[in-house]
Amino acid sequence: MRAAVMRDRKLVVDEIPDLVPGPGQVLVKTLACGICGSDLHALKHIDRMVETGRRSGGAFVMDPARDIVMGHEFCVEVVEHGEGCQKTLKPGARACSIPVLIGAGGLSPVGYSNDTPGGFAEYMLLNEMMLLEVPNGLSTENAALTEPMAVGWHAVAKANLTPEDVPLVIGCGPVGLAVIAGLRIRGAAPIVAADFSPARRRLAEQMGAHVVVDPAEGSPYKKWEELAQPEPDAPATPFGPPALKPAAIFECVGVPGVLQQILEGASRGARVIVAGVCMEKDSIEPFFGINKELNLQFVLGYTPEEFAGTLRHLAEGEIVSEPLVTGKVGVEGVADAFEELASPERHAKILVEPWR
Amino acid sequence: MRAAVMRDRKLVVDEIPDLVPGPGQVLVKTLACGICGSDLHALKHIDRMVETGRRSGGAFVMDPARDIVMGHEFCVEVVEHGEGCQKTLKPGARACSIPVLIGAGGLSPVGYSNDTPGGFAEYMLLNEMMLLEVPNGLSTENAALTEPMAVGWHAVAKANLTPEDVPLVIGCGPVGLAVIAGLRIRGAAPIVAADFSPARRRLAEQMGAHVVVDPAEGSPYKKWEELAQPEPDAPATPFGPPALKPAAIFECVGVPGVLQQILEGASRGARVIVAGVCMEKDSIEPFFGINKELNLQFVLGYTPEEFAGTLRHLAEGEIVSEPLVTGKVGVEGVADAFEELASPERHAKILVEPWR
Repeated sequence: MRAAVMRDRKLVVDEIPDLVPGPGQVLVKTLACGICGSDLHALKHIDRMVETGRRSGGAFVMDPARDIVMGHEFCVEVVEHGEGCQKTLKPGARACSIPVLIGAGGLSPVGYSNDTPGGFAEYMLLNEMMLLEVPNGLSTENAALTEPMAVGWHAVAKANLTPEDVPLVIGCGPVGLAVIAGLRIRGAAPIVAADFSPARRRLAEQMGAHVVVDPAEGSPYKKWEELAQPEPDAPATPFGPPALKPAAIFECVGVPGVLQQILEGASRGARVIVAGVCMEKDSIEPFFGINKELNLQFVLGYTPEEFAGTLRHLAEGEIVSEPLVTGKVGVEGVADAFEELASPERHAKILVEPWR
Repeated sequence: MRAAVMRDRKLVVDEIPDLVPGPGQVLVKTLACGICGSDLHALKHIDRMVETGRRSGGAFVMDPARDIVMGHEFCVEVVEHGEGCQKTLKPGARACSIPVLIGAGGLSPVGYSNDTPGGFAEYMLLNEMMLLEVPNGLSTENAALTEPMAVGWHAVAKANLTPEDVPLVIGCGPVGLAVIAGLRIRGAAPIVAADFSPARRRLAEQMGAHVVVDPAEGSPYKKWEELAQPEPDAPATPFGPPALKPAAIFECVGVPGVLQQILEGASRGARVIVAGVCMEKDSIEPFFGINKELNLQFVLGYTPEEFAGTLRHLAEGEIVSEPLVTGKVGVEGVADAFEELASPERHAKILVEPWR
């Protein structure tokens, strides 16, 4: 079958061996698979990514010297069942799954593995028990957004929002936009979001942000403060005036320096949910966190329940997803798509359709 | 009156102007005042401390070019009331207070200010409404431990312990020992504590640690893991065996590098309570936090209720405090005491008794 293969730190189109479903596994056809920021990072920094993953307790266990087929944000079509399957979903049914394959060798991440091809190939193997049927009426494109949207839904869940919280989203790439979608479903208001890119600020508004800020024009933290003034009947603090409303600040950028900016900009007692995936060393001044008693919650991924819940949210139209998909390519277009995604003005999410 | 004065980055004994209590204020005699790690830091790095405090939202607002009388861990005796006082506590009564003075000019930290002398002077000014009488039977030495012990009690409160938690205390200086005392009151078990110093490990055991670790001999995190094995009936996680018991890791060292060590050593989902006061830049690899979904809660100080609660704990004998006080000096001994406190083998807490 044809696939966009990461080989020698480049993306090439090649034929790779066909797949045979093992016990409990299903051969599926990739209908659509999004390109993730982590995929871009992997192509540029695969060695460091593998090394950091190894040192930090096990992630990205791959041999960069061997082929890797990435792609973990997919909607698929059932093709053929392996032994012992219940066959609840018939061939032709559309499904989503958490990008993990359980096989004889244990657990393998789909899309970040040498032996488990991801969605930038025509076909994949998935576990039958993990397949979630795509509800009637939900487009394949939107179903493929389940995985990235689940990341935002999980981050919002880990924020333990209270009705008083005023959320601030720093960075409106796919992670930030997914967080905004999750906040909107939870009814948080006002949602403040910041990004340097006009296109991304527009997307943030479409996804549900109430107020967007261009950090080049003014401080997102100052704007947040304006919107987080205490209610007239708020009680005084032990040694001062009433406190601002509580802050839930979502770090959705993931590059060195942003964490310290947030420590400096955050209000006293703010909760910082670190959803950006920074894989480099970073420098912070802990005293900013200490003096304001900040809380940093690092997050990654989602639970199976959150993944299934996100598919339902998409099916029920609770997430404005249409404007997110800004491009579609076949496997031969993957390398160029990786280049184009560097520009926040042109693209948010590009879907790969390997059947093209 | 006589005081140990920080002048030109040195400690000198000198006469300073006598104090007159303003409205609602009380002139008190310092019976005993502990030397805090932050005092040692201030003497060495006052300029950086003031600058970091200013940039991080307001702390340590002082002019290092002018005299500063430190000392914020005190037990005092009421001497004379200012105007408008209720005089509930008569002259001669012993009391503790949060080290903050409210006056005409607003709020001033006692001991970190140019105009509000702290407990390394014979006398201080405090607000009557903040005085807590020392219960009969509690020694002056132990009452003076209220402030540092409240720091530990607050850190433990911010950890939101569950009955399943297995706490790990990194560093057994005064902050770590106060955390251990707080954990013991909360009934946490087993309490694991780590320090390179044999004397401090001995103190940790006396304060209530169940297991102590010398990091030079073995990893505190490995020892923690042995003690945090899941109960036989614990449920499996979505894609793996039952999880270890939850970790509450207390960072009580406060020097660069320790935070990254904790990110590396911590178990998945651990809560890290950062009680050490690091005032320098620090370097972390966020992906360790991300991959394990760690939570970092920075803490500082205590609430008025926690302070009062700690005085009660001491009075009721719930904190083993006797072994903590390892020395007593008059004002002329303060400079040497600062030097001696650099050695963890000889000292934990030295009390200044300016009346000597």
